[in-house]
Amino acid sequence: MKLLKTLAPVVALAALPTLGMAQEAEAAATPDINPYIFTTLLFLMGGFLVFWMAAGFAMLEAGLVRSKNVTMQLTKNIALFSIAAIMYWLVGFNLMYPGDGWIVSGYLGTLFSPTVLEPVGLAADAAALDYASVGSDFFFQLMFCATTASIVSGTLAERIKLWPFLIFVVVLTGFIYPIEASWQWGGGWLSELGFSDFAGSTLVHAAGGWAALAGALILGPRIGKYKDGRTVPMPGSNLALATLGTFILWLGWFGFNGGSQLAMGTVGDVTDVSRIFANTNMAAAAGAVVALLLTQVLYKKPDLTMTLNGALAGLVSITAEPLAPSLFGSLITGGIGGVIVVFAVPMLDKMKIDDVVGAIPVHLIAGIWGTLAVAFYTGNWGAQITGIIAIGVFTFVVSAVVWFILKAVTGIRVSEEDEINGLDMAELGMEAYPEFSKG
Amino acid sequence: MKLLKTLAPVVALAALPTLGMAQEAEAAATPDINPYIFTTLLFLMGGFLVFWMAAGFAMLEAGLVRSKNVTMQLTKNIALFSIAAIMYWLVGFNLMYPGDGWIVSGYLGTLFSPTVLEPVGLAADAAALDYASVGSDFFFQLMFCATTASIVSGTLAERIKLWPFLIFVVVLTGFIYPIEASWQWGGGWLSELGFSDFAGSTLVHAAGGWAALAGALILGPRIGKYKDGRTVPMPGSNLALATLGTFILWLGWFGFNGGSQLAMGTVGDVTDVSRIFANTNMAAAAGAVVALLLTQVLYKKPDLTMTLNGALAGLVSITAEPLAPSLFGSLITGGIGGVIVVFAVPMLDKMKIDDVVGAIPVHLIAGIWGTLAVAFYTGNWGAQITGIIAIGVFTFVVSAVVWFILKAVTGIRVSEEDEINGLDMAELGMEAYPEFSKG
Amino acid sequence: MKLLKTLAPVVALAALPTLGMAQEAEAAATPDINPYIFTTLLFLMGGFLVFWMAAGFAMLEAGLVRSKNVTMQLTKNIALFSIAAIMYWLVGFNLMYPGDGWIVSGYLGTLFSPTVLEPVGLAADAAALDYASVGSDFFFQLMFCATTASIVSGTLAERIKLWPFLIFVVVLTGFIYPIEASWQWGGGWLSELGFSDFAGSTLVHAAGGWAALAGALILGPRIGKYKDGRTVPMPGSNLALATLGTFILWLGWFGFNGGSQLAMGTVGDVTDVSRIFANTNMAAAAGAVVALLLTQVLYKKPDLTMTLNGALAGLVSITAEPLAPSLFGSLITGGIGGVIVVFAVPMLDKMKIDDVVGAIPVHLIAGIWGTLAVAFYTGNWGAQITGIIAIGVFTFVVSAVVWFILKAVTGIRVSEEDEINGLDMAELGMEAYPEFSKG
Repeated sequence: MKLLKTLAPVVALAALPTLGMAQEAEAAATPDINPYIFTTLLFLMGGFLVFWMAAGFAMLEAGLVRSKNVTMQLTKNIALFSIAAIMYWLVGFNLMYPGDGWIVSGYLGTLFSPTVLEPVGLAADAAALDYASVGSDFFFQLMFCATTASIVSGTLAERIKLWPFLIFVVVLTGFIYPIEASWQWGGGWLSELGFSDFAGSTLVHAAGGWAALAGALILGPRIGKYKDGRTVPMPGSNLALATLGTFILWLGWFGFNGGSQLAMGTVGDVTDVSRIFANTNMAAAAGAVVALLLTQVLYKKPDLTMTLNGALAGLVSITAEPLAPSLFGSLITGGIGGVIVVFAVPMLDKMKIDDVVGAIPVHLIAGIWGTLAVAFYTGNWGAQITGIIAIGVFTFVVSAVVWFILKAVTGIRVSEEDEINGLDMAELGMEAYPEFSKG
Repeated sequence: MKLLKTLAPVVALAALPTLGMAQEAEAAATPDINPYIFTTLLFLMGGFLVFWMAAGFAMLEAGLVRSKNVTMQLTKNIALFSIAAIMYWLVGFNLMYPGDGWIVSGYLGTLFSPTVLEPVGLAADAAALDYASVGSDFFFQLMFCATTASIVSGTLAERIKLWPFLIFVVVLTGFIYPIEASWQWGGGWLSELGFSDFAGSTLVHAAGGWAALAGALILGPRIGKYKDGRTVPMPGSNLALATLGTFILWLGWFGFNGGSQLAMGTVGDVTDVSRIFANTNMAAAAGAVVALLLTQVLYKKPDLTMTLNGALAGLVSITAEPLAPSLFGSLITGGIGGVIVVFAVPMLDKMKIDDVVGAIPVHLIAGIWGTLAVAFYTGNWGAQITGIIAIGVFTFVVSAVVWFILKAVTGIRVSEEDEINGLDMAELGMEAYPEFSKG
Repeated sequence: MKLLKTLAPVVALAALPTLGMAQEAEAAATPDINPYIFTTLLFLMGGFLVFWMAAGFAMLEAGLVRSKNVTMQLTKNIALFSIAAIMYWLVGFNLMYPGDGWIVSGYLGTLFSPTVLEPVGLAADAAALDYASVGSDFFFQLMFCATTASIVSGTLAERIKLWPFLIFVVVLTGFIYPIEASWQWGGGWLSELGFSDFAGSTLVHAAGGWAALAGALILGPRIGKYKDGRTVPMPGSNLALATLGTFILWLGWFGFNGGSQLAMGTVGDVTDVSRIFANTNMAAAAGAVVALLLTQVLYKKPDLTMTLNGALAGLVSITAEPLAPSLFGSLITGGIGGVIVVFAVPMLDKMKIDDVVGAIPVHLIAGIWGTLAVAFYTGNWGAQITGIIAIGVFTFVVSAVVWFILKAVTGIRVSEEDEINGLDMAELGMEAYPEFSKG
């Protein structure tokens, strides 16, 4: 994603031929409105596709938790999206895109400046003719903020209390994400350094992964997950939902990466958006196929959840640079994402880091890989590594502080009894599948 | 939604500079075709998003009924959409947009005039240059008609017979909805009065709610629902599906409200569409958060189905005016929708009106609220109240008459035995989840 | 779908009035870029909608198999899509659209020529101004290739081994589909003959159906399906998923048929796309209603799975010509699709051809019907019949050869014990619903 809000208003002149001196002034006064409409439309379409990813995370996570925790996981997902929508309006958007309003230049933007959209029914089209509508931009960017929070909920499932989790979401979507993202997309110090992260392998996915990792370490694993040096499998309750969630995320990712071109009003831009769509799809396919093949080779049985996570890791991997690679480059980038998932999931278990849905391998580790891989195209390894570390340290440390405060003040983990009985009955008094008896 | 079909053809002239006398006539003869394409595209995109809401209703309702009635609920949902598609072609579209063909001016349009689309491959682009294609308009409007019917099926679930319900859908989608909607969107008496209902809080949602209420009163509650003055909970069988349905509806609503701008070919229009997307999202988020918080405060346990319905009530609330409010105004409007749900659901139960999915609070009561709230922007309280009452009385009375006739002629309720055993085996001989034993 | 890649680059001149001699040359040098953007956008939107059909097939099939085979069915679906994405890049796209690179003119195109997209950030817009971006075209066409493979997986469910099935997918998506589709859409002999198949009733749906039929005959029916001359019902495990899948497919079909207009940059084209959307919807609705009514009449109980397949058969039927018919014509075409399903499903059972999800009636038989029906508009019965037979013979014979080779080399059917226990535990060691005990 290129810089957006810091761009000076672009008056896209109509590509009219020079008409002779006398007519020239008049022609210049008639800007071509179509690029504005096309780019606004790209944000709206991209935005609703990324919105749809919220449903994808909800289904993926509901499918991968045990049935006694499904209602809770669904509640967290719809609540976190709603909170993100409010916090990003109240604080996040203008904090992330401060324009000239940096409090600490390049590091911290304007605080508590709720988003204001254009007035209704702009009378003078030409006068208002900026790059694209602020409303569409806000709508699109908000979805990225919500995605960051969605990543966290999966890792911490089946044991975290609802309200402390939602308070963390308030901080993450209102402050942590907008601040770190402003360093790059808001025109902050990372963008000046030459760091490159097209659609957010690091800014969104790894950031969400770091927040999740901090939470997982402080929260600890589920009861009975690691026993006598062995990892006890706790299979997801509904793999059809998990697969549906993966397909939803895959679909939404066309908007995530394609919309991050941030322009669709020229032949070059719409052609680049097409390239991004094709590359994004290829990386996902490669991640899935690699994970399927690898699990067959390693475990003699192909593993559906690994395959699903392989597709997602392919998507995260290509997100830092979905435009520059060829289709073959995208296949390699995404395929390595698939390798990462297959090896990182058991590695985390060995470290007794309990990540219920595999979000840390998929979003954090594949996100780092994808961001590093950009340097094959830009050559700027230093900037990529600096960005990865800076975002990682900031997000991890601030998240850990928030988790510690929450642990001290409200507690973040349900009681042992509630965890064993399931969060649905204990915290919500409502089962997701009340009529399907447990095997 | 503004008037559509009554608009005179707009020849959008190219915004070319005046080229000097000699060339002026020729320039005027070259209209800009892009607004036509953009607006047609808005209808197509809006239309497929609202189509998707049919799937949302199906999933929401399938998730909120007990498993013994799921196949029936799915059957009703796919059948009602299909019937709406046929009836709106056969009668509804031209009845709703009579143009000059009113039978009773402002109240009753042309009957039995099936929709005809433009001929294939319009040869002379310029000559055909109207506002947008009739095909896209028909496609878009048809989805609103189907939505009205979707609302009814949820309320009456688990006890109504299939065929009488579908006959009601024939009347609702062919006649009741097109007639009442023509009063406003077809250029009828309500639009002349100054009534305002942008995307149909009243014309679609409250209307569906009134039809559902009439049915619920005549049909009576499910066996065992109200016992010794208490309301017996009958929890939905699959909250994952219900949540999926809510996300689908939320996504579709961007098309519902955004498409109702009915134009996307100018900077002002596409900017307004963006504003509508952002406001719609905010209202849904606010409704969800408010319902979550309120159920925590009132019942000490957050309630997922209330939260889902809170989001939907937020969406219905903003539908009457998704353009004028600021984001903060949308938050307030949607948040009040959330409050309505939390209080109206138990209130209906106290009145022994059995609404299986909560469609009456969500679509009827929040729809009235949203329509009233428009007067904060227009100042015209009289027109809003008149519209609410007129649509309410007409839809409720005609629906009640139809339900009474159906009750007398075919009966509308399954036998007591069939209701207890579930409609799936009794009426369809097919279970939705034949292998999942009942707890 | 019209020819695409064989079209010569179209420089769409701006529809400017002639400006007088001196300015004419300059005006001609400024092409209108909007048609390029609109058409590219049509491919991107059409492409993501058809991508979504992959999820639809996954859900439909997961819902219609028994729960012991759900994980396998999900695995096959995500794997087949991923393989199609890779094979279509590696071989398929340029084999299907050989341009001047036919190996055997009109019959066999270029082999092993991986797809290359446009370079990034086309600097000179005007110079690059072709019909639409290759990237968007590749993205769109790839989804059709994947759809062909999705059709096969449903028929052969519950008994075929994973890896042989996936090897078949490699051959189908890399070679069989691209070769037969090149005969028409690549400018091959069928297109020269006057055969007409707008969006692929024969090229995609019947072709997938023929491949499935060959597999079903060679694989044989599931154990216990046909016993003592009776057909034993093996009901699907989750009709909510099956219904969701149908709605997804219905939604995706707007992209499938609408995108096949292959142009959206003129009033005529976008109006035609609208007409296609409306007709496609009508055919699906008619197929569903007819199947619902017919099952009521024939069996006294309406049948949900027949209704779902009726909608799908309506969609397949209209796919060969979604533009020419009126809405009434579409209703008839789709309605006959519904009739086909209701009669063909039991007919196949009588022939002991075990088609788990009904893909052969829906995609093969309705596909033939839809392709034949085109002759009512073109008058060219000979070309339609020739195309149907040629594609049928080629696809069926080559598929059968591949299946026989796989049967001889690796075996294609799981062991009797594995089939009875379910493929999920036997081949994958993972249940889709591990906690829902079997009734």
